[in-house]
Amino acid sequence: MKKAVIIVSGGIDSTTLLHYLTKQKKYDLYALSFKYGQKHKRELKCAKYQCKLLKVPHIILDIPFFGKILANNSALTNKNKKVPYGRYTAENMKRTVVPFRNGVLLSLAIAYAENIRASVVFYGAHGGDHFTYPDTRPEFEQAMSLAGQLGTFNKVILKAPFNEMNLDKTGIVKLGLSLNVPYEHTWTCYEGKSKPCRKCGSCNERIEAFEKNGIIDPLLTRG
Amino acid sequence: MKKAVIIVSGGIDSTTLLHYLTKQKKYDLYALSFKYGQKHKRELKCAKYQCKLLKVPHIILDIPFFGKILANNSALTNKNKKVPYGRYTAENMKRTVVPFRNGVLLSLAIAYAENIRASVVFYGAHGGDHFTYPDTRPEFEQAMSLAGQLGTFNKVILKAPFNEMNLDKTGIVKLGLSLNVPYEHTWTCYEGKSKPCRKCGSCNERIEAFEKNGIIDPLLTRG
Repeated sequence: MKKAVIIVSGGIDSTTLLHYLTKQKKYDLYALSFKYGQKHKRELKCAKYQCKLLKVPHIILDIPFFGKILANNSALTNKNKKVPYGRYTAENMKRTVVPFRNGVLLSLAIAYAENIRASVVFYGAHGGDHFTYPDTRPEFEQAMSLAGQLGTFNKVILKAPFNEMNLDKTGIVKLGLSLNVPYEHTWTCYEGKSKPCRKCGSCNERIEAFEKNGIIDPLLTRG
Repeated sequence: MKKAVIIVSGGIDSTTLLHYLTKQKKYDLYALSFKYGQKHKRELKCAKYQCKLLKVPHIILDIPFFGKILANNSALTNKNKKVPYGRYTAENMKRTVVPFRNGVLLSLAIAYAENIRASVVFYGAHGGDHFTYPDTRPEFEQAMSLAGQLGTFNKVILKAPFNEMNLDKTGIVKLGLSLNVPYEHTWTCYEGKSKPCRKCGSCNERIEAFEKNGIIDPLLTRG
């Protein structure tokens, strides 16, 4: 079976993708998470839980410089900046941008793939992604995939299956529910607290995706 | 003046580029070096020296994981692997490959550029680069540049002036000599010793570039 790396943040998109690909059994999966100084470290525990559940080998790459040096302007990593509340708008989303985050994380994932001789890097980008983050756009992903193919011996490509399947977050939750993904062990809130704040853009989006599937987010009803 | 980031390793190519761009006075330059677990840390001291000399602000980004987790297969970072001696061949060069190194370093430089609102990342790639390293190829660089433009607000582009000027290492040394670059404060040898080994592929290439310019490498004649 071909080896593939999958980036798992511990959020809904990547966790659903992990379950989906595990069920497909087409690839020998290696999960990769990043500790980049994010306030919401709880997501890493969730990533670990899900990988253990599915028996997928998992490493967490510690890249603290990302928070320290590169990302001081982002509310996601700077303790002095408040995570914006309410629904995402172009203005408040900019405050959560870690500069070129996906560019750095994808290139690290490609390097890891090259090192373990995997030829694919999977990640959970999807058509419903907010287009305010320039490094989540499909045309950016294609350029990075090309760079991966041209810059490695193993011709590592990127794949974002949810983009190909034309799924948005509601569609992803629908798929995940059919796969019995334990969503109570995923994390989305940008705040570093023990319970979701229910106020930040990420929480809003998550809650809505479950509501549109006719259920309450299991994370909110958990013990 | 527009801000630009320049990647400075402390070797001949990037040091010459630093002097060349400083002399041009077209950009407000910010130098960036990486400490990625390389055995030849002496190059970082050289980078520091050159930036101080030219009064260019300089930061060194410490990315130890690169040596620890990603690059165990490379002789450049693994103490148990010998740096290959003699002229480069396709076979022995592969032993010095850090997987997707330029992909990771360029994406970090793009992130840094985005963070300080610079719109260009300069680096010292050139036409004489060995084509055994897939991530030094011009087509790879173009893909990464496109990813940089598409993945940032500031539309950060990559520029490799020596590629555009069609210079190889001998041509770069020629240019640098005309700019009075103090080459005794540059470092090229892959070994981590106090003097160049004169045996590794890097040393061979460097010595030859000076010889072709009719002089002895000033690093070899230094005190």
